[in-house]
Amino acid sequence: MLPGVGVFGTGKLLEAVVPHLRSLGFRVVALWGQTLEDAGNVAGSLHIDYFTSRIDDVLLHKDVDLVLVLSPPSLQSQIAVKAMGIGKHVVCDRPAGLCQSELLKMVLAAQYYPSLLSVVGYGLRYLPAVRQLRQAVRDGYVGDVRLVEVRVTCGSLLEGAGYSWLCEPAMGGGLLSLIGSGVVDLVSHVIGQRARRVHGTLRTYTRQTRLIAGIRHVGSDDFCTFQMEMDGGALVTVSLNAHLSGLQQEVVVCGDWGHLTVRGADLLGFRAGQHETLHRAAPGEAAAPPLPEAGPQPALHAAGLLRLLAAVAHSFADGEPLTDAASFQDGQYVAAVLEAVRVSAATQAWTQVNIRSRMLETNYLGMALKAADA
Amino acid sequence: MLPGVGVFGTGKLLEAVVPHLRSLGFRVVALWGQTLEDAGNVAGSLHIDYFTSRIDDVLLHKDVDLVLVLSPPSLQSQIAVKAMGIGKHVVCDRPAGLCQSELLKMVLAAQYYPSLLSVVGYGLRYLPAVRQLRQAVRDGYVGDVRLVEVRVTCGSLLEGAGYSWLCEPAMGGGLLSLIGSGVVDLVSHVIGQRARRVHGTLRTYTRQTRLIAGIRHVGSDDFCTFQMEMDGGALVTVSLNAHLSGLQQEVVVCGDWGHLTVRGADLLGFRAGQHETLHRAAPGEAAAPPLPEAGPQPALHAAGLLRLLAAVAHSFADGEPLTDAASFQDGQYVAAVLEAVRVSAATQAWTQVNIRSRMLETNYLGMALKAADA
Repeated sequence: MLPGVGVFGTGKLLEAVVPHLRSLGFRVVALWGQTLEDAGNVAGSLHIDYFTSRIDDVLLHKDVDLVLVLSPPSLQSQIAVKAMGIGKHVVCDRPAGLCQSELLKMVLAAQYYPSLLSVVGYGLRYLPAVRQLRQAVRDGYVGDVRLVEVRVTCGSLLEGAGYSWLCEPAMGGGLLSLIGSGVVDLVSHVIGQRARRVHGTLRTYTRQTRLIAGIRHVGSDDFCTFQMEMDGGALVTVSLNAHLSGLQQEVVVCGDWGHLTVRGADLLGFRAGQHETLHRAAPGEAAAPPLPEAGPQPALHAAGLLRLLAAVAHSFADGEPLTDAASFQDGQYVAAVLEAVRVSAATQAWTQVNIRSRMLETNYLGMALKAADA
Repeated sequence: MLPGVGVFGTGKLLEAVVPHLRSLGFRVVALWGQTLEDAGNVAGSLHIDYFTSRIDDVLLHKDVDLVLVLSPPSLQSQIAVKAMGIGKHVVCDRPAGLCQSELLKMVLAAQYYPSLLSVVGYGLRYLPAVRQLRQAVRDGYVGDVRLVEVRVTCGSLLEGAGYSWLCEPAMGGGLLSLIGSGVVDLVSHVIGQRARRVHGTLRTYTRQTRLIAGIRHVGSDDFCTFQMEMDGGALVTVSLNAHLSGLQQEVVVCGDWGHLTVRGADLLGFRAGQHETLHRAAPGEAAAPPLPEAGPQPALHAAGLLRLLAAVAHSFADGEPLTDAASFQDGQYVAAVLEAVRVSAATQAWTQVNIRSRMLETNYLGMALKAADA
């Protein structure tokens, strides 16, 4: 039997996730929301019997064995660490914490309970086009990977939203944190290389909106471009632009003798002078109704998360280990890269990616930025 | 009557340019080639009476009043400077010289003869989609311009070519020089802002080909990404990738309340929640038969050059000044930006764009790179 699930979060994503969990055979046992009112409203509309605004009440619930963390980023790490501490499986939405320290705490917690499932919700890995892309790269379709270009364009992540954590980079808001994290994970997963050095540029152009005005300002980035030098020799360039409309995502992997392109949920290949379509997405493959196409949780990402949850269900049902999922270590790597991009943007210099194995008492990102200022 | 034209160069571009010049009413009087044999062959097939391998013979030809410089970049500046020195009009293909010094010589030569036409062949300016883009930006379609993203993908510029100047960055080869120059000019022309600081990354992945092997190596860049901070506050990101196939060019201009996209030769707009097609290219609009789509002289660029030549013809016929064309000063600005990108790529740091007004005896780019090394 599949474990009972406790869900953290009350966002729109739940409207897609909760019915999906049930269709997979999970029981959704408990729901946590930041206020009791939020929790009650969402629990009511999604028919979840137990709801609360106290984190421990869900974690200690006797029927909850799997914790699904869809809360704002500032709470993700502490929920995940606590959950593992009392022996619950964890699937934690991206970016799974605000900085590398938070991810490192999760990594350390997971090491004490290696039998527990500990997964970061980088669901793009599970899209059929991405799976096939990875396989094709491994099979040598393009030869040695030299270059990866990723381009994501979307509308404002703040569309229709009032002031919230989305407006604050320190709270996990912004394109780099919400979209860039998934891109960094995707690239490493696909080409099997990790970033050694990065150079980044971040911009916030839209500082106020119709709904965020007066003394409120948006501080989170709505444009971001960064380059990564990978340990296997590849160069990766990423451009994220939230000044367009609708989500468009393109990943191009170039090698010695060909290239592969994931455009949306399709996979296209080119080698020996020939173009070919390696995967054509079925209708709805990249969608997660009733979620909209874009917004802070784009449908493409949500569709990936739903597939990840399906893999989790299969893993529990068959007793097989979960393959291809992002571990907390993978999550820490992504956090380290994002930190390096922020330091680079602040210092305007190429910046080393440092993956730490020990906890520091103080905020590493803050220290690095301060050192760069001096 | 239109002036007689002396053409420098024997490349494939001439097969499109010479018939076009004649259809505009120009007489093509003389042809120069690097060897007499080359010149003779091309003159024969294009029915040009006079051909030579001596530069002065074309410049001093009594019926030549307009010099069209389509030679390799290493010769462009000296031909243009000489031509102006003896009172001939000059249209010089991009990049119009190897470094800022060469462009500055052209600027100084042009200042002595202000009545002569002195134009750099940045023909993209003349494509209908680009003209409309510029007008729409000026009319405030997007509001203040914040961001410009340019992405050009193409196949290898060396496809089917043996070892030549195309393989040497010091001789004007490479993506940055051949494609990037046009992009830098285009962006400044469209948004009316100039680069103040740049950050660039250059790579050469393909070092040998089937036709370039043995002791020969390719040194010119086949991948390039750079960012430009503009004097009007906009940020421009450019990505040039010669590891794909066929030419694709996209220019996205984002502003306060909308965005405009030139994709190939089409212009698309978005504002107030609505997409619209502002220009749909007619069949053949972006082509210059018999030139191929891609290669070192992509059809899109050639199509622009043909339109520029048409504007030159109208200007001579009507006695009206030529509007919208790139002056030698514009060419010098582009060369200064390309130099800064090269310095940035070598020093891995953001680099100031310095536009010089005085000649230096020594090579400025070499000095800057040396200073950065020390």
